[in-house]
Amino acid sequence: MSGSPTADLAEFVVRSRWDDVPDEVRQEAVRTLSNWVGCALGGATEPAVDIAVEVFDELSGPRLASLFGRGERLDPLRAAFVNGLSSHVLDFDDTHLDTIIHPAGPVAPALFALAERQPEGVSGARLLHALVLGVDVACRIGLSVYPSHYDRGFHITGTAGVFGSAAAAGKLLGLDERAMIWALGIAATQSSGLREMFGTMCKPFHPGRAAENGLAAALLASRGFTSSEQALEAPRGFASVLSDDSDLSVITADLGERFEILRNSYKPFACGVVIHPAIDACVQLRDRLGLVAHDVERVELSVHPLVLELTGKTSPTTGLEGKFSVYHSVAVALIRGVAGAAEYTDDAVADPEVVALRGRVVATVDASIREDACRARIRLRDGRVVEQAVEHAVGSRERPMSDEALDAKFKAQAERVLPTEQAEALLALCRGVESLADAGEIPRIASLTVRPDGKS
Amino acid sequence: MSGSPTADLAEFVVRSRWDDVPDEVRQEAVRTLSNWVGCALGGATEPAVDIAVEVFDELSGPRLASLFGRGERLDPLRAAFVNGLSSHVLDFDDTHLDTIIHPAGPVAPALFALAERQPEGVSGARLLHALVLGVDVACRIGLSVYPSHYDRGFHITGTAGVFGSAAAAGKLLGLDERAMIWALGIAATQSSGLREMFGTMCKPFHPGRAAENGLAAALLASRGFTSSEQALEAPRGFASVLSDDSDLSVITADLGERFEILRNSYKPFACGVVIHPAIDACVQLRDRLGLVAHDVERVELSVHPLVLELTGKTSPTTGLEGKFSVYHSVAVALIRGVAGAAEYTDDAVADPEVVALRGRVVATVDASIREDACRARIRLRDGRVVEQAVEHAVGSRERPMSDEALDAKFKAQAERVLPTEQAEALLALCRGVESLADAGEIPRIASLTVRPDGKS
Repeated sequence: MSGSPTADLAEFVVRSRWDDVPDEVRQEAVRTLSNWVGCALGGATEPAVDIAVEVFDELSGPRLASLFGRGERLDPLRAAFVNGLSSHVLDFDDTHLDTIIHPAGPVAPALFALAERQPEGVSGARLLHALVLGVDVACRIGLSVYPSHYDRGFHITGTAGVFGSAAAAGKLLGLDERAMIWALGIAATQSSGLREMFGTMCKPFHPGRAAENGLAAALLASRGFTSSEQALEAPRGFASVLSDDSDLSVITADLGERFEILRNSYKPFACGVVIHPAIDACVQLRDRLGLVAHDVERVELSVHPLVLELTGKTSPTTGLEGKFSVYHSVAVALIRGVAGAAEYTDDAVADPEVVALRGRVVATVDASIREDACRARIRLRDGRVVEQAVEHAVGSRERPMSDEALDAKFKAQAERVLPTEQAEALLALCRGVESLADAGEIPRIASLTVRPDGKS
Repeated sequence: MSGSPTADLAEFVVRSRWDDVPDEVRQEAVRTLSNWVGCALGGATEPAVDIAVEVFDELSGPRLASLFGRGERLDPLRAAFVNGLSSHVLDFDDTHLDTIIHPAGPVAPALFALAERQPEGVSGARLLHALVLGVDVACRIGLSVYPSHYDRGFHITGTAGVFGSAAAAGKLLGLDERAMIWALGIAATQSSGLREMFGTMCKPFHPGRAAENGLAAALLASRGFTSSEQALEAPRGFASVLSDDSDLSVITADLGERFEILRNSYKPFACGVVIHPAIDACVQLRDRLGLVAHDVERVELSVHPLVLELTGKTSPTTGLEGKFSVYHSVAVALIRGVAGAAEYTDDAVADPEVVALRGRVVATVDASIREDACRARIRLRDGRVVEQAVEHAVGSRERPMSDEALDAKFKAQAERVLPTEQAEALLALCRGVESLADAGEIPRIASLTVRPDGKS
């Protein structure tokens, strides 16, 4: 170890071998990858994605890379942007709970774009290895500045994600240590994204841009484009400029022994993760008691402070805004029993029954409640008061989604855009990615330019 | 005025008419534009530009846009990036002294790229108008957070420049007020660039990326891509997240009456502007006394604190690092009498005569000295001590470069890459830009794909 976190992290990424990565890490990487592919499909036809494709289709270079769930192809940088955007547009992708980073969004699209670009191809194992490393880099850098950086107002998925994309792409490109240091530096100086954008198309823009900018950083560094060699730790480097407090020792602590991807989690509900405990509690009450909306006089929630800070919109008017409304989320889940993509459309948010019920939801902050917990109390019209406490919401690290539940989530999203047979073939490819000779098969089968049998 | 700086600024840009822009502003805009074109030519063959072209040539979309001083053509976004990069790579471009923003770098490349992209063309007057507005937007936003934002470690040319690019490109695209607000928001959430990168290829990367990202913001907004509508002033907006102190009233004060481009300045020397007073003083002593290096025993400089903070490198090893060394700058200028691009090459920095003299240069901070002032005292081997004070360095607002000096600077840079006849034709086009029917003529004549007579 050189004592420079930037140099040590670069050295680790360059020297890491797939054989050194433990089995449970590999298995979690497959879950992260499959969940990401499903989310990219689920979001592929949202308006933000349509607009981005319209703009970048006109300006695209060689159309080497597929768009998940769409028929167009774009150059690798633009494809990385669009796939990163679509995978986060429903806010349904993976979450590293210690930092609230959605780590696959900035990393996976850069890798799939490279897999289709490299003439020699990229094996599934190499891609999975790079994904593990990219997630590790993004989350470790995120941890070093969390929560100060996030509290300041930066959207950490974009700001830390760009490092993950650069490192992962750099791994596939075979950068040496010096070039990897430059790639991290070029990433650092592009690190951006404001939480103020939550509820607009710019939120999913962040992982898209981070994927694209990290990939560009790796490509530039591979040809000798220089940057500071202490981009993380210098007095005017990332940590001190974009955060008020940091602990850079976290970046290299137990490097290669602890893998942050093991702390990744997957959402059962298509909204901000801080709302999950409330939805979970209400759906449990609904299912246990057979509640319908008309029964409910008032819903009283006791929640962690972040719930109202992040998702306190009382009157959302679009599906996107609905994702940042605990009131909408609880109302729609009480009525429908689920909170998937279909519950966060403009129509769902305007549904009169949902609007009426959401007006009867009250949330109160309780600083003693953990982020993955909640207490729900429902006053029924018949005078009864029913309660449900959730200690760890479904999807949390303590109650992770099972492989079966993840598969069901994948299929529900994939079938929004792909024929069933193609969706199933794709899921099988994702589950078996480690043995794929050419990881580019995944984006190709995930696009609309192939038949379900995989032929164009 | 709505009371929202974001909305008010957007409204101003959308409603501004060329007829409302005073003559002196137009004249300064022509100087800004001509100086920028010269700098883009002067930097066109630097290694950082070669690498960027290599990477983006492979990925380029439709090659609608020219690269200044080069033979390749790229899609408009990539061309904006490369031209912004080349115009700042020699650190010889314009400076808004109140913020240290180099405002043309992020703005002009986006406009020239659009001028070549738009099927209907863009007149010289429209381009010049958009340049005035883009510079105004970048500098006003910069002023609102300066110096806190800069002190924190952000390279303000990139972070504020992206707003200028977005606003200027949005003006040419004819955005309505709502779309202009979104363009500013998409710019805000891409605002990035660390001062830690000074002395590496990432410094000129910043205006390049700002030009590209601002142009992308305007294109996305033009198709309805949404962002926060209070990106500047919201509690988690640009000003409070990227700065510790701000005065947002500056953004709209005297809007349309005071134009920041009138405060733009141009460098006679190809290095950081804070070194200019020291070079000026030493060159005056050299010329007045006919000094040669051998005469000089020791050079003692009293300088503003920023000089050592920004340009205190005692032993630069590359031309780029030389730009951040007051020691190299003073030594080479004392020997050669000038400090143009040729004095900041790797060779010039390694020149044994320069290296020997730079070891005899001492700089001392004096907090009572203004940024554009300096006192130089030279001890000669014959025992004499000679002194020169500079109140306002040449190139400062009080001692601006004349049109003739700017033309000479333009020609010296243009002739690095273009035949003399072509360079002169280009200068005439720049000086007469206001009456050009098609501003796209400028990048076309500035590239190597045309003959000096303008035919391809």
